[in-house]
Order: sequence, then C-alpha cells, then structure tokens
Amino acid sequence: MIYLDYNATTPLEQEVTEAIVTALTDAWGNPSSSHEAGIKAKEVIDNARQNVASMIGTIPSNIIFTSGGTEANNMILQSAIEYYKQHYNDSSTDIGDTINCLPHIISSCIEHPAINEYLKYLQHSKQAEVSYVPISSTTGRLEVTDVIKHIKSNTIMVTVMLANNETGIIQPVKEICHSVKSLVRHEGETQNILVHTDAAQAIGKISVDIRELNVDYLTVVGHKFYGPRNGAMYVKGLDSNDVPLYPMLYGGGQERSYRPGTENTGMIAGLGKACELVSLNREVYEKTMLECRNYLENKLEEYFPGRVHFNGKFEGTERLPNTCNVSILGEKYHGYKVLSRCKILQASVGAACHSQNKPSSILLAIGIDESIARNAIRISVGRSTTTADIDRIVEDIYQAIQSIDQE
Amino acid sequence: MIYLDYNATTPLEQEVTEAIVTALTDAWGNPSSSHEAGIKAKEVIDNARQNVASMIGTIPSNIIFTSGGTEANNMILQSAIEYYKQHYNDSSTDIGDTINCLPHIISSCIEHPAINEYLKYLQHSKQAEVSYVPISSTTGRLEVTDVIKHIKSNTIMVTVMLANNETGIIQPVKEICHSVKSLVRHEGETQNILVHTDAAQAIGKISVDIRELNVDYLTVVGHKFYGPRNGAMYVKGLDSNDVPLYPMLYGGGQERSYRPGTENTGMIAGLGKACELVSLNREVYEKTMLECRNYLENKLEEYFPGRVHFNGKFEGTERLPNTCNVSILGEKYHGYKVLSRCKILQASVGAACHSQNKPSSILLAIGIDESIARNAIRISVGRSTTTADIDRIVEDIYQAIQSIDQE
Repeated sequence: MIYLDYNATTPLEQEVTEAIVTALTDAWGNPSSSHEAGIKAKEVIDNARQNVASMIGTIPSNIIFTSGGTEANNMILQSAIEYYKQHYNDSSTDIGDTINCLPHIISSCIEHPAINEYLKYLQHSKQAEVSYVPISSTTGRLEVTDVIKHIKSNTIMVTVMLANNETGIIQPVKEICHSVKSLVRHEGETQNILVHTDAAQAIGKISVDIRELNVDYLTVVGHKFYGPRNGAMYVKGLDSNDVPLYPMLYGGGQERSYRPGTENTGMIAGLGKACELVSLNREVYEKTMLECRNYLENKLEEYFPGRVHFNGKFEGTERLPNTCNVSILGEKYHGYKVLSRCKILQASVGAACHSQNKPSSILLAIGIDESIARNAIRISVGRSTTTADIDRIVEDIYQAIQSIDQE
Repeated sequence: MIYLDYNATTPLEQEVTEAIVTALTDAWGNPSSSHEAGIKAKEVIDNARQNVASMIGTIPSNIIFTSGGTEANNMILQSAIEYYKQHYNDSSTDIGDTINCLPHIISSCIEHPAINEYLKYLQHSKQAEVSYVPISSTTGRLEVTDVIKHIKSNTIMVTVMLANNETGIIQPVKEICHSVKSLVRHEGETQNILVHTDAAQAIGKISVDIRELNVDYLTVVGHKFYGPRNGAMYVKGLDSNDVPLYPMLYGGGQERSYRPGTENTGMIAGLGKACELVSLNREVYEKTMLECRNYLENKLEEYFPGRVHFNGKFEGTERLPNTCNVSILGEKYHGYKVLSRCKILQASVGAACHSQNKPSSILLAIGIDESIARNAIRISVGRSTTTADIDRIVEDIYQAIQSIDQE
C-alpha cells in the first residue's frame, strides 16, 4: 500500500517518537512538583515551548500547549466572545448603544469543522453573529476585499485558515490581517478586530512566520507535520495582555492557568521535536513534496489526457506543495468509487471525517461543478514520497478507471 | 533518590510505554480515514475503550476519552448545568416557579482543583449555586447525612472524590449515591440528582467498580496509575441518554461528537494498557503498597516515638493503601523544611501544585491543627517500593530532623 493521505494525518518522524519515549521514560515526573523528577519534566516542556516558538518566529511566552487543534481553535473563538462580553456588552460600561448586541465573527465557508462547528454552536446558542465570506470562483480563495466588506461595528474577530486541507489553496491571511488592522474604527465600534489563523495544514509545508503574518492567534497541530496528536496556540503578547485569552478549563493552574491539567510531557516533547525538525528542514520538505506533486499531476495528465481536472489549481493562486485534488472526468468516476477500486493507493475523497457519497462542500464553495466535485480524490504527498511511488499509484488509478469502464 | 510521590504522578509501566510506541508506530493513521491506516487506528482505540470499561465494570459505549482528568471533571460539571438549563430553567417549559433559579451543586471542601476551581468559575459567572459540605473531624471524611442535609429543590448534582489525594481518605461515595438516589423528589424539584465521583486517586489502589458505586459519572486519570497523561470518563447509559452529557468542544465529530478532535491514538492505547494491568493485578498492587505503607508508619513511630501524627488516620475510616500523610511534631519541623533537608526522599507537602509555605487547606478542612498541618509531608508509595527503600528514607528524614535540631 502507498499512503498518500498526509493531509489527514502523518506518521511520526523517528526522532519525534524517540523524543516522546525519552520524555515518558526520563521526565515522567509531575512538572508542578518541586523535586528533581518535577524539575526535569518542566525543563522538557520549556525546551519544547522554545522549539514551537522558534518555528513560527515568536517567543516562548506566547505559546500555550493544548490537547490539539480543536481545543485551540475553540478556545480562541471563545476568548473573542468573552472579551466582547466584558468590554463591549457589559451593562456597567457605557460605550454607546451602537454595538450593544452580539459579537460578530467573520470566517470563510471553507474552514475546518473545529472552527466551523464551533461557530455554528456560537450562533445556535445566541452567543455570536457569524458571517461566512464566500470564496472567489476566479481565484479559488478568500479575497481580502470580500472580508473587509463584511466588517461591521460589532465585528470582534476574523478567523481564516492559512491553507485549505482539501485543495491546498493558500489564503491571503497576511493581507487580510494587514487590511483589518489598517481600518479606522469609529466610536461605538469594536476598537481592535482580532485576527486568527488555523495553520494546521500549512506548517511544515510552507513558511509560517508570525512576524510576517502579524496575526493575533495561530493554531499549531502536531499530527499534520509528523508530530504527535497534541497542539499549541500562539497568542500575541500573552504575558502583556496584548490580546485576550480566556481559559475554557479550570483546575491546577498549569499553562499559566490558561490551560490547566497536568502537562502531557511526552506529547509536548514530541511536538517540540517535530517543530525543531520543521525549523531545520522545511525548505527541503517543501521542495521534495513540490517535485513529487508536480510529477504526479504531469503523470495524471499523461495517463488521462484532457480528462483530469485539478480542483485546487487556479491561475495566480498559491497551493500547498504537497496537495493534489483531482477529478477524473466522466460520469462513472466518482471519487469514492475510484478509490475503492485502487489496490495500493491510500487517499481520500476529502477531509477524513467527510461523508463519502456527497460532493465536498469545500469544492462546491470554490466554484467546482457538482459533477466534477463528485469525482474528486485528494492525494497528498509526504516527505518521503518518491516518484516511483507516484508511478505506481497513477498506474493503480488507471487500472481502477479501466475496471469501472468494464462494468 | 527514592521517589515516594506516586500520588502526584507515576512513571509509566514498561508495557504501557510499549503500547504507546506500538500505536504511534503501527497505528498512526487517522481513525476517521476509511482506508487501512485509519481502520487499524480505530481498532486500537476500540480495544483501549474495552479495557477502560472492563476495569471499572461497564461497557465500552459508556466511556469517552478526554485529554485528562481536568477536562473530564469540567465537562461533567458543565453537563449538569446545561441539563438544568434545558430542563428546569427554560422559559418555554412550565414546571412551576419553585426551581426557576440557578442549578445547585453539592461538593466537598477537599476536592481537587479540577473540580473546585471549576465550581468557583460557575459561581463567579453566576451559572450555579454551590454548597461545599464540611468534613467530619471525627471521621476525617465527608458524611452521608451532611451531604443529604444540603440537598435543595434545585440540586442537580453531587460531586465527591472517591479518595483524597493528600490524605488518602476514602469517601463514602457508594453510600452517598445510594442515599441521594433514594430521596423522594416532589413536584417543582429536580427529579434526578446526578452523582459524580473523581476516581483519579482510587483507581489502581482499591477496587473501583461502577456496579457497586452506582454513580452516574466517574473520572479516570491515566497518570495516577502508571498510565499516560490522558483520561476518560464513564457516563451511565450514554447511548440511551440515561444521564446527560454535553460537549465543551465542537469539531470533527470524534468520540460520538461528545469530544471532537483527532484521537490521540498513542495515549489512548497506553491508557487502555494501564487499565488492563489494573484489571489483572490490582489486588497484588494493593497488597504490596499496603505492606509498604504500614511498614513505613511503624518505622516512623519507631524513629520518632510519640512525635509523629498521621494526618489521614481516623478510627474506622478507610485510607488508600499507599498514602501516608505524616507530621513530625515540633515547632521547627515544617514539612517543606524537612523535605528540603532530605537527601534521597522525593515527596511533597501536599498536592503538586500546592504552595509550600501554607498549611494544606485539605488538612485544615479535616480538622488537623494548623501547627500540625504545617509540618505535613505526603509520602505515597508505589507498586515497586520496597521496605529497603522505606528504611533508607526514614533514616533520611531522621537525619533531616537532626540537621534542623542542630541549627
């Protein structure tokens, strides 16, 4: 079998597994304990925090470890709501009536469920008003001007993923942030619109640097870049309260009380190592994956001349170097059907939790025809994928298509 | 160094580490993926869920994996609040005015911060009314009659830890549950008072069986019984909605949408293995630890005749087999001071996150004099602690006391 579903999850790098085992074996003490076993564990965590911070160009005090991306994303959204409640919607403060209503969050219609489902919950529980900005069918991405158009007096946050998990399309987060932060806000309007990006799919594949993006919050998800299943969040100037962060959990005071619970030292050590590897080798990873993905797309065009459509390819729009979302054109070639006939390819029709029989809502949202979207296969290559692997899986797809033809 | 702080955290059993490494290496696929890599991961999780369930005498569908005990405890409390909101405090339902107020939760004043701090948050945010039942200074534990006295028409939950982390004192959870469930509730009162127990310190040390306890919710914390830093919760009849559970996080639908986020397969596999070991060996662990702890207490009395006070020892009250909370009597023998003079003993003055210079609030709550509480040292033995270790650390404490005397 050849696994080409690296956007769903990645194996752990050998060095990451080693870092986890070392931490579990040698640094198993409670990081809050004041004796030697505790001090050792605390050092491992400090070191990992440094590695996460360095990877994205920030300082360790801006990093909070979480159980994963879902928790990080949810907590960041909830923080914006809580901040709004305390600053703009408290009956004891008098800031004029104009924004004395629900906080408004702007997002896109192609976000991961960890954003999307939480936003639905916030809407349903009447905690927030949400605008889902449509995607341009010309560029396949969210356009800055469309985001700005949706900003209102009560807008408190803009949250946009850095790269889409199904298409690999990179969103103009830096530009969105710049435009949002440049807006002149009047009295009776929220004074600082917070900007968040979920960088789950981008890290380890393209450069992700806080100093460039300038966002207020960023989500890090270990298992998308050969790390473990925990995560972290970047919060701008956390110690000086530059931007708000409120805990969702309450307990023993770990992570400066923002995220209590005895620290998962093993996983944290693994995440730190995975970040260190990205800091050291990201350009090499990017180059290798890009070559492989381009080779794959050329091969597919060669095998199916005039019959392939690359769903993430838009003129002038950047994509992740590893992602190929492709439809073999033809009424019978539904993505799930083609994959079920493949003998060696392990890929998916979209996100891992996506239902098999419906066309992907992400693809429909970026303007792909339903008949094409239904045929989509997401092939995402990894760090060690070779052109020989590609040769084999393209042949595999070819045989799958032939077997469907012969039905 | 001799580590005798097993109530703070435990090392991982070799087999647990192996289970984690095997899962990280062989079952790293996304459990939601429909291809082989995903199916393998799902099997590992199913197997672990079976092991957690078996350990506490229930079925796998009543188990939800969480990132740890803090999350489990918080989520269970929040579920009670949400349930009350939806059933007793919704303006659209008419159940009479009597309980149209805040939900009431009963707890003890010796709970872990993961309960205690969340309760404070609920009070502070005006989501709940909380009663902290005092501890009997005769028995050192929470008494059933005292719990029952605090029940009101709007009581929705009783949450009491199964065994205290500092003293090892076992609380009468089974009896509390029985009494609470036997109450005749009148119209205008909550009809079902939910009972939760945090079994963090009890599992692996004493028998913990749902069929006996009959609680609605129970919290499992891996790292207290030689497992990893994740956790699980038992929820009675979850699939048939016997008792309510509401998610705190929203995302990709994992854990039947109660706890979304890509499953931490490695940690889950480790937790499953740790539970399996407890199912197989708990009685042996209990016996070994009990012998060691009793040997320790005899030795301490021998070394400091008439000068030791065992803070968790009350006539007729059961204690965990591994915990010895001891004060060496004398004005200068503050717990933190004694420990700082010890050369080989790694122990603590109380919970890991407890401030060193104040007497433990837990000890004060059970009626220990401030002058004695200030001197407390919590020594908690583990599965592999030997009487030879005890000999060495008692001598170590003796030397520490001598060095203080010679100041």
